[in-house]
Amino acid sequence: MIKIGVLGSGTGSNFAAIAEAINSKEIIGAEIAIVISDVKNAKILDRAAALGIPNKYIPADDFKTKLDGKQEQDYIDALQKANVDYIILAGFMRMIKGGILNAFPLKIINIHPALLPAFPGLHSWKQALDYGAKYAGCTVHFVDAGMDSGPIIAQSAVEVKDDDTAETLHARIQVQEHIIFPKVIQLIADGKIKIEGRKVKIG
Amino acid sequence: MIKIGVLGSGTGSNFAAIAEAINSKEIIGAEIAIVISDVKNAKILDRAAALGIPNKYIPADDFKTKLDGKQEQDYIDALQKANVDYIILAGFMRMIKGGILNAFPLKIINIHPALLPAFPGLHSWKQALDYGAKYAGCTVHFVDAGMDSGPIIAQSAVEVKDDDTAETLHARIQVQEHIIFPKVIQLIADGKIKIEGRKVKIG
Repeated sequence: MIKIGVLGSGTGSNFAAIAEAINSKEIIGAEIAIVISDVKNAKILDRAAALGIPNKYIPADDFKTKLDGKQEQDYIDALQKANVDYIILAGFMRMIKGGILNAFPLKIINIHPALLPAFPGLHSWKQALDYGAKYAGCTVHFVDAGMDSGPIIAQSAVEVKDDDTAETLHARIQVQEHIIFPKVIQLIADGKIKIEGRKVKIG
Repeated sequence: MIKIGVLGSGTGSNFAAIAEAINSKEIIGAEIAIVISDVKNAKILDRAAALGIPNKYIPADDFKTKLDGKQEQDYIDALQKANVDYIILAGFMRMIKGGILNAFPLKIINIHPALLPAFPGLHSWKQALDYGAKYAGCTVHFVDAGMDSGPIIAQSAVEVKDDDTAETLHARIQVQEHIIFPKVIQLIADGKIKIEGRKVKIG
């Protein structure tokens, strides 16, 4: 049984997809040990509470866009106290840096709403639309010190339609996110993920 | 009827796919008026000859990696003499720059073996493999002054398999190239391509 810690700043739709997959036994061998948010009244905390999952607001606002300093240590302490094996970033709107990466090497997993390495950074579905790309998508990847640059575990391609708005495209990408992220959790619970350099292989 | 000029340096498999689609009337309303290569004995010239299509070797080796100077003018002259409306780059291994772009504004079309903007440049299927991307693909785009950066007309996503080699992945990408490039030619012949800023819309 692997224990997962979830960090999120918003509605937590990916957290909900994973929690529901665990509850319905679509995912076997994983449990969510704790949900932590840097936003006091984030919906992700309410959702965790409703599912009976331990959840906690931990301030992180000593820095604006990253998790760092004493507050980073607060996160590490809470995650270690909950005995988590893996950390999932589910809409956590801060850059993850050295301290927590060193505490959980290659154990932090993010989902990004683009087919990386295309469109890293914020609002990547809008970036794809503005670029005129015919494919957008989403990527589940290990977090490293770069911006959305770690080894890729899974991706799903989503066709961009001529009449897409940022909202319609984002909605179709999120459908795929809620499919591939639970699948990756199952692969991890089954010990099927092998990392070779920056290549991730399944099997 | 639109007239197409094809530039290629190698085997011309994309040229062959388009020429066959025209011969079999899969593409209606387009003809290939001339095939030009910067490589003296390139297979693309033999293929053109076998299909009865005018073809010509025009040296371009005053510069190593681009088409420029007097030799660029030789290309422009030959293409204008053949009355071409559009130019297709089918494995033409030189950067296209200002002179020919100005002579044929938004009329030069390239195919690139990646889901741009990911993996511009050379050997992009190998770049995708080395990066550990789970999707590769191909992109048909208008050529601008940048490197593989012009407005995208069509893309096809190709899943990367764990046991792919550069060769197996490239082969699957080429299958998609030979599907989407003829489709784009048909759309152009039908006048269905609209360019809005850097977005290309069909219809």
